[in-house]
Amino acid sequence: MPDAEIIAVGSELLTPQRLDTNSLYLTDQLNALGVEVVRKTVVGDERDRLTDTIRGAIARSQIVALTGGLGPTEDDLTRDAVASALGRTLEFHQDICDQIEERFRRTGRKMSEINRRQAFVIVGAEVLKNDRGTAPGQWVQEAGASIMLLPGPPNELKAMFEQHCLPRLERILPAQAIRTYQFRCVGIPESDLDALISPVYKQYPNLATTILAVSGEIHIHLRARCAEADRAQALVDEVAAKIDPLLGDRIYSRNGDSLEKVVGDMLRARHASLCVAESATGGLLGGRITATPSASDYFAGGFITYTNEMKTRLLGVPESLLAEHGAVSEPVAIAMARGARERLGTSYALSITGYAGPTGEQVGLAYIGLAAPDKAEARRVQFGGDRDRVRMFSTNTALDMLRHALARV
Amino acid sequence: MPDAEIIAVGSELLTPQRLDTNSLYLTDQLNALGVEVVRKTVVGDERDRLTDTIRGAIARSQIVALTGGLGPTEDDLTRDAVASALGRTLEFHQDICDQIEERFRRTGRKMSEINRRQAFVIVGAEVLKNDRGTAPGQWVQEAGASIMLLPGPPNELKAMFEQHCLPRLERILPAQAIRTYQFRCVGIPESDLDALISPVYKQYPNLATTILAVSGEIHIHLRARCAEADRAQALVDEVAAKIDPLLGDRIYSRNGDSLEKVVGDMLRARHASLCVAESATGGLLGGRITATPSASDYFAGGFITYTNEMKTRLLGVPESLLAEHGAVSEPVAIAMARGARERLGTSYALSITGYAGPTGEQVGLAYIGLAAPDKAEARRVQFGGDRDRVRMFSTNTALDMLRHALARV
Repeated sequence: MPDAEIIAVGSELLTPQRLDTNSLYLTDQLNALGVEVVRKTVVGDERDRLTDTIRGAIARSQIVALTGGLGPTEDDLTRDAVASALGRTLEFHQDICDQIEERFRRTGRKMSEINRRQAFVIVGAEVLKNDRGTAPGQWVQEAGASIMLLPGPPNELKAMFEQHCLPRLERILPAQAIRTYQFRCVGIPESDLDALISPVYKQYPNLATTILAVSGEIHIHLRARCAEADRAQALVDEVAAKIDPLLGDRIYSRNGDSLEKVVGDMLRARHASLCVAESATGGLLGGRITATPSASDYFAGGFITYTNEMKTRLLGVPESLLAEHGAVSEPVAIAMARGARERLGTSYALSITGYAGPTGEQVGLAYIGLAAPDKAEARRVQFGGDRDRVRMFSTNTALDMLRHALARV
Repeated sequence: MPDAEIIAVGSELLTPQRLDTNSLYLTDQLNALGVEVVRKTVVGDERDRLTDTIRGAIARSQIVALTGGLGPTEDDLTRDAVASALGRTLEFHQDICDQIEERFRRTGRKMSEINRRQAFVIVGAEVLKNDRGTAPGQWVQEAGASIMLLPGPPNELKAMFEQHCLPRLERILPAQAIRTYQFRCVGIPESDLDALISPVYKQYPNLATTILAVSGEIHIHLRARCAEADRAQALVDEVAAKIDPLLGDRIYSRNGDSLEKVVGDMLRARHASLCVAESATGGLLGGRITATPSASDYFAGGFITYTNEMKTRLLGVPESLLAEHGAVSEPVAIAMARGARERLGTSYALSITGYAGPTGEQVGLAYIGLAAPDKAEARRVQFGGDRDRVRMFSTNTALDMLRHALARV
């Protein structure tokens, strides 16, 4: 199967403010055809560097998609650079120029002289019509490589790709199917997880396995590419079935759902309700639970008790308990969760109390409390990293404790 | 001035779901040193392709920054690929291995055998310490090129770059003075703001002006680069002095401080205190206020009242008010803020009630309430965009209302 490279052209994409997002769409489309994107490059509007980049891509890969640099101004250099890289010339097409002029006329404007630049086509290239803008695209075949020049504006690019590039790619590519599977876990370090599952995925070199650490969670992506869809599906299923029991209940999602959505769905299915009592996280846990639409089906609300006084006044945590054990302690976490649950009358309550830092001896220490209908408990956790990380990881632990408790109901 | 290239390593960055965002931070930092980023590449975890990419970059550019691929697993190949590209070998460093082991021990875990991979260093490279993760970075000099290997997680990368790469780059780059100034505004659309200030900054083509929309805020960066520091400072000061009166009290920060920090500092200076009552945002406002260390100096806590029942029970919002006006209304926002302020005895209280969506006719409509010692008020706002955006923008408005109220005290 051929590999693809994507080259985004434009100096604005090399500033600290802008990213090339067109490549996400193109990757999705190419993947669906069974084509891997093996490299993405962003280059500025500089003739030699652009030509050099294009030349390298054509030499290496069978499919090269260029986006941007097809506009009318002097720094729109994609046409020239591809022509140079291929050792071809550009020729003026009067019919394209007429179409551009007609397009301006329809919107009551007059074509600028500089738009004539957009009517130059690489010798031997096919012109790809642009229904949504003035810049036509181009499709060039050269020694086994297919090169497409696409406009930068996403709506123009998408329409052109779907109308003109997809059919061409389908003609030249062997039929291929891609099937994927995703696990999401929490509460296990990346290296431990890899040690656990690598003996499995290493037996399957023809299946791509990616392990990703995201905000204290681990996401595992499996991806199989085969000539027949059935075989790709069977391969993914086979590996998933071997990994699943190794991770067991550390897996919270097998379809890409977020932890808060999974916990929310479990609460809803059990007709159970939840409230929170937050100290170190100051509301982040509630904020995260309510990031899921319709959270009001199971989430009542809660208390932000940032000071000791509030823990006593709002949650009824005894002053003596705070004095004896300190605010960051197991008994206080339990008393916070119990207090919230009793006051709001929900089935469950989660509490968080901890030292988020950045200063202090015990930074990263937190206690996560859970009050359930039958009992209340708290877990001690010690996180590394900065304030944001400690707070984020604390909400992970809280949601995951509740998930485990709900799984037993 | 030397040019730079950035290479992001990781197959997950070649999927339709993920973008390399580390390059934005690195570009910003390199630009500030006067270095242009001329090419950005994303490559997967594939040894030959990665080695080839690194070799090309080193041949072309004087500064090459690699991000990612320093983890402990078999598909973390950056160390090996750079060594191959340079024709060097890797050597095991027992002291690094000991540090990684110690790091695991501190958080109560045991180091896996595979983490030993992270203790391999390219012969001749300097080791860059990682305070926030296990993967150390590396710095290699080769025939006029400086090559840095940085970890993928943004917080680890930033800390390492600032501590270890910036000082090294400052030593090797020609002296250029760069002076910057930053305004932060909230409550004004980007296009309106640009129309207001562009007549000023367009007079100064030798000063770089960047306008950035970030989560409903607008950040304006001025940046002058001159051979002498005095000239750069004078230029920045001159333009800042002209822009300042045009934006007036829409400016909340002139030093990069976040809105929540600015509001927190104003509260502290006035010996005033704050609490919150959140519906649509579910705790995000409290979470944001407590993102600032020492927020307990002024922030007491608050109530998350996601359901109508909780608004009545916890905040004393009359059922009749909810029935007559609906939960998303001016009177309810005011009653929520008043209720929270009275119950917690703080000087100020902020409330948020709104429709965050994604469904419903009035998605994006919110009322933000403020109860102050002398009066209570609410503001109606209508935001576009998705659920996250509506919730984020609501917290902006709340903090900005309080900022304006405090400015009058």
